Amino acid sequence: MARQAAGPEIERLIQLLARLPGLGPRSARRAALYLVRKRDELLFPLSDALCNVRDKIVTCQICGNIDSCDPCTICRDEQRDRSTLIVVETVAELWAIERAGILNARYHVLGGTLSALDGTGPKELNFASLPLRIAQEGVKEVILALSATVEGQITAHYVARLLLDLGVTITRLAHGVPVGGELDYLDEGTIAAAVRSRTPF
Amino acid sequence: MARQAAGPEIERLIQLLARLPGLGPRSARRAALYLVRKRDELLFPLSDALCNVRDKIVTCQICGNIDSCDPCTICRDEQRDRSTLIVVETVAELWAIERAGILNARYHVLGGTLSALDGTGPKELNFASLPLRIAQEGVKEVILALSATVEGQITAHYVARLLLDLGVTITRLAHGVPVGGELDYLDEGTIAAAVRSRTPF
Repeated sequence: MARQAAGPEIERLIQLLARLPGLGPRSARRAALYLVRKRDELLFPLSDALCNVRDKIVTCQICGNIDSCDPCTICRDEQRDRSTLIVVETVAELWAIERAGILNARYHVLGGTLSALDGTGPKELNFASLPLRIAQEGVKEVILALSATVEGQITAHYVARLLLDLGVTITRLAHGVPVGGELDYLDEGTIAAAVRSRTPF
Repeated sequence: MARQAAGPEIERLIQLLARLPGLGPRSARRAALYLVRKRDELLFPLSDALCNVRDKIVTCQICGNIDSCDPCTICRDEQRDRSTLIVVETVAELWAIERAGILNARYHVLGGTLSALDGTGPKELNFASLPLRIAQEGVKEVILALSATVEGQITAHYVARLLLDLGVTITRLAHGVPVGGELDYLDEGTIAAAVRSRTPF
């Protein structure tokens, strides 16, 4: 005789919260209760924030970034170096590189990696406009900032082959020991790569 | 030169999501991106669900439960046994007991436990209406379904003393081995309690 204690409105909220990455059914229930308890401090603002994102956020037609304007702030930014283009898998990696603040270039978001397992072929990803952008925007270097996974590397090779005849320099991120990382916890592949690419001290 | 890559709308959403229990800044960022990607399947429904909860959910003036009606569905339910009243800390515990489906009684939600550390005194909790309810509703048994923590037990004693002269039976939940629990992982206190309360096999 298990019953639903919460009304349909809250059950629906729990159900949807549980679909967020990082929240399971149990933590979604806790989150929903927390929201109801923090009505003014959290429920109202979160509801407004979601409506805002829902109504304002669009995908940039040039690079695939998400922003409240199209073209996005990065593509509009005249201060950005147009000769370098950073190819990333998703917006998450774009944000990560922006947070690092090391490059002042523009991006090209593929929307994922090639994956036979997930059935993601070249048509599912944002490859088509890439050669065109390189020609139109006068790009000289393409940095392949893709994951060091099998899928990421296959995708990197695919992009490299796609750009073969365009006369651009193609680079990839260095492999090595993560800053703050303990050697003890690193896999052999990373250590081997770090040794091969060792630099003068 | 660390920059905010996401626009203000998304940064605000990330900030608010990060305040949910179970989500940190990093998982909030992932959740926000996931929401933007799953616009139709998740962002729109979640936004609607939050608005619904925001607009419809109220606290029951009788028992302290949350529902879309006041008195709540449980308090309105004529099928519920009115002679038993279950005292719980918060709505979370009310839901947990409802899910167990073992009791068909009504509840009294205190809103927390007495806690000197958090500065929660008797005035902060929903004690005042409890003796009145017991008299008016003809309650014969009060089940103290409070946590087996120090705060929970102090609160249980406080309630018991409050009801001393009302002539109601006061019971508490049994201590013992959780169903599915391995003895090996249980603390000595629980094992001792389970031994003391052993039952014929």
